[in-house]
Amino acid sequence: LEEKKYFSARDELMKYNAADIAEIIEEITDDSEIRMTVILFRLLPKDVLVEAFSYLPSDLQVDIVNEITDKEINYIIQELDFDDKIDVLEELPANLVNKILEKTPKNERKQINTFLNYPENCAGSLMTPEYISLQKEWTVEDALEHIKEVGMDAETVYTCYVKDTGRKLIGIVSLSTLVVTDSDVKIKDIMKTEYIYEDVDRDQEEVSDDFKKYGYLAIPVVDKEHRLIGIITVDDILEVMEDEATEDIERMNGVIDFENSDKGYLDISVWHHALNRLPWLIILMIAYIFTGMIVTKFENSLSTVICLVAYMPMLMGTGGNTGSQAATLIIRGLATGEVETDDVWKILWKEFRIGIIIGVILSILNFARVIFIDGNSVMVACTVCAAMLFIVIFAKIIGSMIPLIVKKAHLDPALIANPAISSVSDAVALSIYFGMATLFLNL
Amino acid sequence: LEEKKYFSARDELMKYNAADIAEIIEEITDDSEIRMTVILFRLLPKDVLVEAFSYLPSDLQVDIVNEITDKEINYIIQELDFDDKIDVLEELPANLVNKILEKTPKNERKQINTFLNYPENCAGSLMTPEYISLQKEWTVEDALEHIKEVGMDAETVYTCYVKDTGRKLIGIVSLSTLVVTDSDVKIKDIMKTEYIYEDVDRDQEEVSDDFKKYGYLAIPVVDKEHRLIGIITVDDILEVMEDEATEDIERMNGVIDFENSDKGYLDISVWHHALNRLPWLIILMIAYIFTGMIVTKFENSLSTVICLVAYMPMLMGTGGNTGSQAATLIIRGLATGEVETDDVWKILWKEFRIGIIIGVILSILNFARVIFIDGNSVMVACTVCAAMLFIVIFAKIIGSMIPLIVKKAHLDPALIANPAISSVSDAVALSIYFGMATLFLNL
Repeated sequence: LEEKKYFSARDELMKYNAADIAEIIEEITDDSEIRMTVILFRLLPKDVLVEAFSYLPSDLQVDIVNEITDKEINYIIQELDFDDKIDVLEELPANLVNKILEKTPKNERKQINTFLNYPENCAGSLMTPEYISLQKEWTVEDALEHIKEVGMDAETVYTCYVKDTGRKLIGIVSLSTLVVTDSDVKIKDIMKTEYIYEDVDRDQEEVSDDFKKYGYLAIPVVDKEHRLIGIITVDDILEVMEDEATEDIERMNGVIDFENSDKGYLDISVWHHALNRLPWLIILMIAYIFTGMIVTKFENSLSTVICLVAYMPMLMGTGGNTGSQAATLIIRGLATGEVETDDVWKILWKEFRIGIIIGVILSILNFARVIFIDGNSVMVACTVCAAMLFIVIFAKIIGSMIPLIVKKAHLDPALIANPAISSVSDAVALSIYFGMATLFLNL
Repeated sequence: LEEKKYFSARDELMKYNAADIAEIIEEITDDSEIRMTVILFRLLPKDVLVEAFSYLPSDLQVDIVNEITDKEINYIIQELDFDDKIDVLEELPANLVNKILEKTPKNERKQINTFLNYPENCAGSLMTPEYISLQKEWTVEDALEHIKEVGMDAETVYTCYVKDTGRKLIGIVSLSTLVVTDSDVKIKDIMKTEYIYEDVDRDQEEVSDDFKKYGYLAIPVVDKEHRLIGIITVDDILEVMEDEATEDIERMNGVIDFENSDKGYLDISVWHHALNRLPWLIILMIAYIFTGMIVTKFENSLSTVICLVAYMPMLMGTGGNTGSQAATLIIRGLATGEVETDDVWKILWKEFRIGIIIGVILSILNFARVIFIDGNSVMVACTVCAAMLFIVIFAKIIGSMIPLIVKKAHLDPALIANPAISSVSDAVALSIYFGMATLFLNL
């Protein structure tokens, strides 16, 4: 490929689907210059080129746009599906966007501007205005004729929308209904008037929950006057779901994505990575000042039975992990709707019993370890084991309750990351441990 | 509702979508007896009843089946979509399944048995055999006529499949293509012969990656002879994606789901919860034996400068959290394909620099704390700060490298949970800390 065998490379590429071509182009760009990519790109037939372009990651799209002529840019942008067009324009510098908009028909320019203004992560930013609209007085034959005329992308044509004269949405008809219905039946007699729709400013996470719940391929988006302004198709929801899962996973483990972007790990700068990770680390360091105070208060007693120090890491670690386990299950349960804040007593009772089972098992194992492996006294073993039992029970309760409290306060439970759970459980663990030591060893 | 106003309750329910009705029924069951649910259920019109039934969680489905007559069970099961039918049958006890299969037509019975045998989590378990198949010699008109005759569910009709005489898949045609093409054109002239398909034993995670990548609404499933045996529709993939995300999140935080089921948090028994969480806790306890040994070895020196103990929780906690942050980003990057195992040097270099930035900032803050808040000596402050810097750098490197090594060994990186990262980083943190103490305080 590197040896200027461009044409054979092109023929090779043409065997693939546009999504695969985009992937190959991405890999080539990793290894060689952008100029190379552009040459290869220009060899592709125009329709394949546009489709492959829509599958590329946004930073590579911008790089390519910077390398090609204005005429080529215009061609690509105009040919893209409306929602892909918006995605590309959002990433381009403002002066380039203006140049492109100048060459866009006035109608569309206005629409693009409206779409560019929808805030990220809301229904408006996910939708496309490319849908089929029908009149309720039409027959099925008229409708099919109309679809044939406008002839659109597969994913947007499968549900058609019926609007009244005031552009308000009054019903929906699926293409499959049209196809199986006799051609002289009127649209108003077959349209569904009970349907699911989204408000334009609805959060994308709620939109994706609706797709999961109802299993639809597309959901209409309406404004405050119930006028149809676009539709969201399920293929865009797959991306939303992945992004939301990534966000939850990162938050739960103490990474806050300040860029809130779809940039990959390798594309985010070192400074930004540090910025995303520092807040929780600093908050925790402050929390550990209190943990330090607990230890300091007990310093003199510790120095007389110094072997107690050796069990501190294990007790804190087990407390932290056992608390995170409970928190993880509750946070995820809240996200998927399996668990609700009203279930607080059920959860408390469940975690309490789980805590006892786990605590007892770990204590027995520990008793054996302290006596037989470490050769410490029975009283030290009792201290460690009693501490272990109570630490596990309290950590389970803390870990499961904090997410519920945060949710009740109408915040995202994933924001209270596992680091927070473990710092609280560390302080609790040490207090319990030293309490037990006082009790059993008379310190 | 409780006051036997069943009919008004039914009229109220009928205003909703079947998915909403299922949700309401679920809530009612939470608060009252199953008998109540069954009474309400019987009042629903039969078609709504069947649809709502398909949206219920599987344990509630089984409960209801246990309460109703065999005739009712048969009716519901026979009317369900094929893939929902399989899902329900999988959960029912074997003798009930046999009773139901006895009353099923022989053809379908054979098919059901085949489907029940596909292992969970593979393409075969996700597919439905309800698809439209066309002949290549047909015209568009023949095809549309055929679709009208078989008239099927919306989501399965939008792509039609062309098979040869040996039942091998030779091409696909979308319904939208059929609708916009002139009626006398032959299917073989408009069908796409380059298409994406899945092998029947492909893992569901890879299938869902294909849906994300290509954005299709349905993908055909073929056997080893390339015979079409079913299709997977995108609405089932939404569930797969949510389940996979839940599994990853749980694994990363040290919960292994042995049941591997779709049961919710509240439905899993206390014993099972304990079983899911114990393995990592026990592995960690064993790992902490080594951490304990490190501390024990340093015991005598610690008792002379006992104030060092107070900083142990903070240094271990920060090391653990900073390591988990790096591990989380790499594990997630590997899952979404943003990061590959070949990127190991890039990642190492990146995390090294991030570690220095974060380490320096945290060290400076700590220096101030040790001197001004705790009133300890400059040498103690130097020990803590130098340890902090090296701990952060090493934790970042360990946290980012372990997932890559696990991936390279062809295991799931999410299996090496954050608890493992923090126990390794705890041991490293203590070794570095005591090393620094020896250096700065001549212990």
